[in-house]
Amino acid sequence: MSDADLAADAAAREAARAMQLENLRADETTLRLLFTEARTHYGWQDQDVPDEVLKDLYEIAKMGPTSMNQQPMRVVFIRSDDAKDRLEPGLMEANRPKMRSAPVTAIIAYDLNFWEELPKVFPPNPAAQDIFKNNATAAQVNAFRNGTLQGAYFMLAARAVGLDVGAMSGFDNAKVDEEFFHGTSLKSNFLVNLGYADTDRIFRRLPRFDYTDVCQTL
Amino acid sequence: MSDADLAADAAAREAARAMQLENLRADETTLRLLFTEARTHYGWQDQDVPDEVLKDLYEIAKMGPTSMNQQPMRVVFIRSDDAKDRLEPGLMEANRPKMRSAPVTAIIAYDLNFWEELPKVFPPNPAAQDIFKNNATAAQVNAFRNGTLQGAYFMLAARAVGLDVGAMSGFDNAKVDEEFFHGTSLKSNFLVNLGYADTDRIFRRLPRFDYTDVCQTL
Repeated sequence: MSDADLAADAAAREAARAMQLENLRADETTLRLLFTEARTHYGWQDQDVPDEVLKDLYEIAKMGPTSMNQQPMRVVFIRSDDAKDRLEPGLMEANRPKMRSAPVTAIIAYDLNFWEELPKVFPPNPAAQDIFKNNATAAQVNAFRNGTLQGAYFMLAARAVGLDVGAMSGFDNAKVDEEFFHGTSLKSNFLVNLGYADTDRIFRRLPRFDYTDVCQTL
Repeated sequence: MSDADLAADAAAREAARAMQLENLRADETTLRLLFTEARTHYGWQDQDVPDEVLKDLYEIAKMGPTSMNQQPMRVVFIRSDDAKDRLEPGLMEANRPKMRSAPVTAIIAYDLNFWEELPKVFPPNPAAQDIFKNNATAAQVNAFRNGTLQGAYFMLAARAVGLDVGAMSGFDNAKVDEEFFHGTSLKSNFLVNLGYADTDRIFRRLPRFDYTDVCQTL
């Protein structure tokens, strides 16, 4: 390991120690905004989302953890009428007006060839890409798992920058892939409508499982 | 739709309108804690995590969105020496001491038969379970995608309640499933070490992709 790497590790430990001493606590308002009172939205105000807001969103979302720093998520923001026309035929009927009325719909995709970038994003193990190079199943499972984790970070980061969010998986992935990712190693995962909500379109909140329904301790 | 349902929808809209008027903004400290300055941890202080903290974690995580409110995530908190002994053989060598030193390791799993619960958790469409009942591929894809989204909510919620987090996917899923989920419809997804970090064990932060590397607008 180089002197520069050792110094960077030492600095990272120092920063983590300093942060631990700060004893940060999550703010209740932010948790309401991101989790506890946030809703999935289906209708949208006629108000645009500036590019700057999408960039701010990504700057937060990108910091969420992925296995070996894989970061397989790729995002296509669908904003123009032309792009919406291309996306629409792949969507279930019920999801078309949600997408059409949203100022932006993000196609959350993942790159099956994410491992080609590992030498750059995961320098601690230059041989890491060999795990995936000749193992399409491992590449698929890791791209889907870690790309989906990033999709969750993306949705929460969108709320953090003041956007309302409505995710959809009711669409024909193969059709969307053919239209947007033909001849590439990208695959669509799910869609996220983004904007400022028309609150008249939501419904009552659906029940969540209790802790004892889904968690156990051994 | 019953009068009670209509009233619940109206109340939900009113609550969403009121929240929109509050114009909530995310707190910078909370974003540092959850995203921008959080680190993946590999070493742990000898300090227990009370059950109450795990319950608080779940109460936040459960509010994150899933498709059709599926909520396929199931969690086994590994805490006892006996349970750690059962988990250890499935783990890659390098991950064993991380698990052994953590006060709690969560097995983030998903239930392939999540659709059996849909009439209860997704009452708007009582026929929703038919989509998955005779389609094992659709059940698998939805369980994995939505269970993974919930795994991401789980990690961020853990940080929100003051825990440090270190996720691991370097283990033999089949071996862990055989040990903990034999004869059930549950499958392991990934593991999350939880506790209070020994900051001496971390490394420098690895590079993230820039917005222009992975996002495009059409």
